[in-house]
Amino acid sequence: MAEKNIERKQHIDFNLLFESLQNEDIGKFREEFLELHPYDQASFFKDLDKEIQTKVYHYLSPEEMAGIFENIEIEDEDYKEVLSQMTPTYAAEMLANMHADDAVDVLNELSKDQVASYLAIMDNEAAQEIKELLHYEEYTAGSIMTTEFISIAANQTIRSAMYILKREAPTAETIYYLFVVDDEKRLVGVISLRDLIVSDDDQMVEEIMNERVYSVGVGEDQEEVARKMKDYNFLALPVVDFQNHLLGIITVDDVMDVMEEEASDDYSKLAAVSGIDSFDRGPLSAARKRLPWLIILLFLGMITANLMGRFEQTLDQVAILAVFIPLIAGMAGNTGTQALAVAVRGLATGDLEKEEKSKLVVREAGTGLITGTTCGMLVMIIVYLWKGDIFLGMLVGISILLTLIVATLAGALVPLIMHRLKVDPAVASGPFITTVNDIISLLIYLGMATIFMGYLIG
Amino acid sequence: MAEKNIERKQHIDFNLLFESLQNEDIGKFREEFLELHPYDQASFFKDLDKEIQTKVYHYLSPEEMAGIFENIEIEDEDYKEVLSQMTPTYAAEMLANMHADDAVDVLNELSKDQVASYLAIMDNEAAQEIKELLHYEEYTAGSIMTTEFISIAANQTIRSAMYILKREAPTAETIYYLFVVDDEKRLVGVISLRDLIVSDDDQMVEEIMNERVYSVGVGEDQEEVARKMKDYNFLALPVVDFQNHLLGIITVDDVMDVMEEEASDDYSKLAAVSGIDSFDRGPLSAARKRLPWLIILLFLGMITANLMGRFEQTLDQVAILAVFIPLIAGMAGNTGTQALAVAVRGLATGDLEKEEKSKLVVREAGTGLITGTTCGMLVMIIVYLWKGDIFLGMLVGISILLTLIVATLAGALVPLIMHRLKVDPAVASGPFITTVNDIISLLIYLGMATIFMGYLIG
Repeated sequence: MAEKNIERKQHIDFNLLFESLQNEDIGKFREEFLELHPYDQASFFKDLDKEIQTKVYHYLSPEEMAGIFENIEIEDEDYKEVLSQMTPTYAAEMLANMHADDAVDVLNELSKDQVASYLAIMDNEAAQEIKELLHYEEYTAGSIMTTEFISIAANQTIRSAMYILKREAPTAETIYYLFVVDDEKRLVGVISLRDLIVSDDDQMVEEIMNERVYSVGVGEDQEEVARKMKDYNFLALPVVDFQNHLLGIITVDDVMDVMEEEASDDYSKLAAVSGIDSFDRGPLSAARKRLPWLIILLFLGMITANLMGRFEQTLDQVAILAVFIPLIAGMAGNTGTQALAVAVRGLATGDLEKEEKSKLVVREAGTGLITGTTCGMLVMIIVYLWKGDIFLGMLVGISILLTLIVATLAGALVPLIMHRLKVDPAVASGPFITTVNDIISLLIYLGMATIFMGYLIG
Repeated sequence: MAEKNIERKQHIDFNLLFESLQNEDIGKFREEFLELHPYDQASFFKDLDKEIQTKVYHYLSPEEMAGIFENIEIEDEDYKEVLSQMTPTYAAEMLANMHADDAVDVLNELSKDQVASYLAIMDNEAAQEIKELLHYEEYTAGSIMTTEFISIAANQTIRSAMYILKREAPTAETIYYLFVVDDEKRLVGVISLRDLIVSDDDQMVEEIMNERVYSVGVGEDQEEVARKMKDYNFLALPVVDFQNHLLGIITVDDVMDVMEEEASDDYSKLAAVSGIDSFDRGPLSAARKRLPWLIILLFLGMITANLMGRFEQTLDQVAILAVFIPLIAGMAGNTGTQALAVAVRGLATGDLEKEEKSKLVVREAGTGLITGTTCGMLVMIIVYLWKGDIFLGMLVGISILLTLIVATLAGALVPLIMHRLKVDPAVASGPFITTVNDIISLLIYLGMATIFMGYLIG
């Protein structure tokens, strides 16, 4: 019984909601719908057909609709469609009622003209806040921060700070940290609500505030911000400019979105697909996302084929050589992908910044030597036992040894070089490094075969 | 000037600390060290040599040391070494002073005997809390929750709730949510500190509490917990048993660690490396992590070679066929990895649960048909222009077409089947699916070549 109770409480009856929409029973719909958590509201909303979506915002105020838009993760195209169906005043009022950072996420997807027209009819204060945030480049701390924070002065009492807190609580993005600023709005300290609550009302803010306040620069990479927040277990981080002026704060919920985004991003790059987040699309749009990569890799593959064409004579004389091509190319690809993943992940988590990168390269060379020797010996023995030809065994075994050393190094070096060139190392995707290593490994294998041809046909 | 100021505040002078340790200047070391954020303390500590580490805990109390251990992410082996250097009473006291969930993380790495001996000499209350948590299986909500939460009754006033809050604040893991329970400790509501602060002192808890409280079951997967927390922007989630009894809470900082862990995990599986997080290891331990995969893939590669051996006669007659082997196998591997990544990610983020899986399979078949047709046509034209042989062009082109359809389907189906079999779909790593697709694609290519041999040598 009790178990069922939980189920009922957590599992929302979307059918009931849907019915009330179809029956145009506004009262019942509003009653049920406004009870929901905004995330559930958004989940319900985004699965509706367009004409039913239109009904929903006819039944809701712009304030109520703002909560849905803050929690929706629909594709850019869908944003535009939904927005375009609203009257401009309704849309502008909804945007004004959203947290400024979320409103900016929406506006960033629109054309400059559209943004300008929404801002023009928007409440002035909200428009000002949004305009400030629109300046900042995507993927920086500035782009994910909000300006709705609570700041207090150092020479206040706790009582008066509590008063400000209560007044600002309804609109602030977080009330769990109060940031202390000086007369020129420079960040000088922080008080957690926890400290505030256990303190005496008559104490001064400067007595209990923590002066060792961690902050991030407004231009800092959002991934760096996420890392800091995660390592230090902060719930919010202040964002400052070069003069240490407090510009905004970044809250932990925004950072979780960043973490999810960056993880998906690295993952999809390793697999050479762009943006693998949306599932409601048809085969055509899926193919459109994958084809660019496949065609690049196809041309790289044609280069491999071209290079192999130069060894056609060798292959013609010793056909058995062809049999081991997939094995050698495959091993090169696999070991390269492993080394690549270690390097990319190291750069992403920041573990590699601290360590000298040359150390990584030396280590990868050592790793390649060990894995190459092991796999090379194994292959030599197996091929010898299978084909009874010691020269063929040695040729394949030594090719594996050399290939694994070179491929491991390539896998580590390519992302390091990209990082140095300020290119995101994750774009050195798995399939890309695999194709490069295909070429290297086949040059080694067929080159050696050509040189030592005499032993193979002898 | 101001810029420098920030730098100085945030950049900690580890050299100064290190000097004071070397000079055995306890007073100066403690003064500087205890000023640091626990994460910085841990960063400093874990880079020290073993004998210097020993000094550190001689200078610190078990309570002070607990903060370091809560923030350390050292490898299992290192944990044991550091612990074994401490006297058992010191270690037990330190564990007792850690947040219970963090202490359990440490104890989970030790042998049963060691755990029992630490618990035996530990403060009774702390030992009890830890014992309760040790029951829960790894990767479940129970294993990451803490029992240090604040619960209140529904029929209390806000004033008395505030009193409990102030009393419990120093030891509770979070004070930002108060959980409301009935007489039998069943979860009936939640109040955020935000609500508490803006409420009137004389109001009753039940008047302002939110009855629609989200919770997770104690046995629920930690990834599911992380997803819920991220989607709903919670800072803490209550954990309940089947009867809805409140057992503990999970806080957002633990969930961020889970997200990082799971992302790294999926990523390293796609690249076929186990645990790519630690960088301070030598080539031997790196090779040990990668070799198991490489050897499995080596044997799969030998199967490919064996299968190709059956086509040796075909290859002997038309050597040019070998030239396109890396291209075809490569394209099969790439497209399979793309489909795999989409499916694994879909299962991981839960997007796929909602949708019928058959829809994904149909879509992937369509995607394979489109990418296959495009790439196949391209290859046919290029090979014809390059080699002037329309039959060879058709053979390679049609092989690419069929290969891409089959490989795309295989990439999507393998993780879906694994998921059905309750195996983590991420273990269907990229290189594994690549090798499987190598085999399929070469069977298609060389099989067709053998059947239509007449046209190729004609």
